[in-house]
Amino acid sequence: MRTLHHQWLDPFSRKVRIALAEKKLAFEMVAENAWEESSDLAALNPACDVPVLVDSNGAVLSDCTAIAEYLDECHLEPPLLGTELLVRAEVRRLVGWFDVKFNRDVTIPLVGEKVFKRQIGIPGGPDSNLLRIGYGAIREHLDYIVWLVERRKWLAGETFSLADITAAAHLSCVDYIGDVPWDAFPQAKDWYARIKSRPSFRPLLSDHLPGIPPPKHYADLDF
Amino acid sequence: MRTLHHQWLDPFSRKVRIALAEKKLAFEMVAENAWEESSDLAALNPACDVPVLVDSNGAVLSDCTAIAEYLDECHLEPPLLGTELLVRAEVRRLVGWFDVKFNRDVTIPLVGEKVFKRQIGIPGGPDSNLLRIGYGAIREHLDYIVWLVERRKWLAGETFSLADITAAAHLSCVDYIGDVPWDAFPQAKDWYARIKSRPSFRPLLSDHLPGIPPPKHYADLDF
Repeated sequence: MRTLHHQWLDPFSRKVRIALAEKKLAFEMVAENAWEESSDLAALNPACDVPVLVDSNGAVLSDCTAIAEYLDECHLEPPLLGTELLVRAEVRRLVGWFDVKFNRDVTIPLVGEKVFKRQIGIPGGPDSNLLRIGYGAIREHLDYIVWLVERRKWLAGETFSLADITAAAHLSCVDYIGDVPWDAFPQAKDWYARIKSRPSFRPLLSDHLPGIPPPKHYADLDF
Repeated sequence: MRTLHHQWLDPFSRKVRIALAEKKLAFEMVAENAWEESSDLAALNPACDVPVLVDSNGAVLSDCTAIAEYLDECHLEPPLLGTELLVRAEVRRLVGWFDVKFNRDVTIPLVGEKVFKRQIGIPGGPDSNLLRIGYGAIREHLDYIVWLVERRKWLAGETFSLADITAAAHLSCVDYIGDVPWDAFPQAKDWYARIKSRPSFRPLLSDHLPGIPPPKHYADLDF
């Protein structure tokens, strides 16, 4: 059996959970607190972070991009990176967009301030300046999603791909804390509703962090 | 002819320059100042950053990982990601290590503070606190390179790969400002000397930023 070492509300872990489910690969999950020095993650991954996948053959893999590419190379169906060279480049460009830019502009300022800071035990509550930055930036990123889905069925083209998985993994973390202004971006909401209805995405909608319940619409397919 | 839109001393641009040269693909370079709003980069890449590759077929590619993977898929020889699944996963893990962790811990605190801040025109000089963080972190990363090359010929295994290219792209930027303590890490220095002697790497050693000359050892193969 595969084991995924993950962290709750970590978008990089969520990406791998969705990719495994899209490939119909069974796995167990072990929750880690990557910020704790006593964590035994270091023995699995010198970067001491999640996700780490221990594959059924015993191989230990880390870095969410390396894991997703590995899964796509080992298990060809369904292809998550597309089959044409330029589509694959577009999928990877958008994976980078969400894992670097969206993460820096939105996920860290909002989820980092409201959830991770509290979990780590940093006193003082969220930094209002960072929250303001995150609230502004998410609107620009939703605008970009709208621009893309006005031109394509899915973010990188006509086929569901790792670009959709990556974007939805980040947005789902922000949605868990109720900070996605869906109603102002109906085309982005429609795209996300299509992702929410996929069987691979359903388990994420059941996540419940102790002491931090999600808003009612989080798990609602008709939100 | 291919055109690479790049920025001087940007490790992500350097990575693509080396990858193109390893594949023996001819290209022209256009220097960009990605921080200038008047830059016409936005028309090529909505992320407004470098590198951007305009391929000889007219395709416009951005995100250094997407470009490197595209080049490796279009031009099979020499393979830059390895040919075995687990080696490919290890190459990609290390690419992520240097592009995310090393960049955050070392490149941004040192090259960002000493070069980019000055180029952008941010007053006040380098932040001494960030420099101290960078000086400490580079030693940990060099320790990790030593650990790897004590066990393997190249960073990800027995073959030169995109992991070596990525690590050397970042280190070469820090070396340009004279901040790599090579003499304290002789095995890392030996690995870097092997990279410096590759024809693909030589053009980077001729780079000269106006007003910011490199130290004498920067271009020296026997440093």
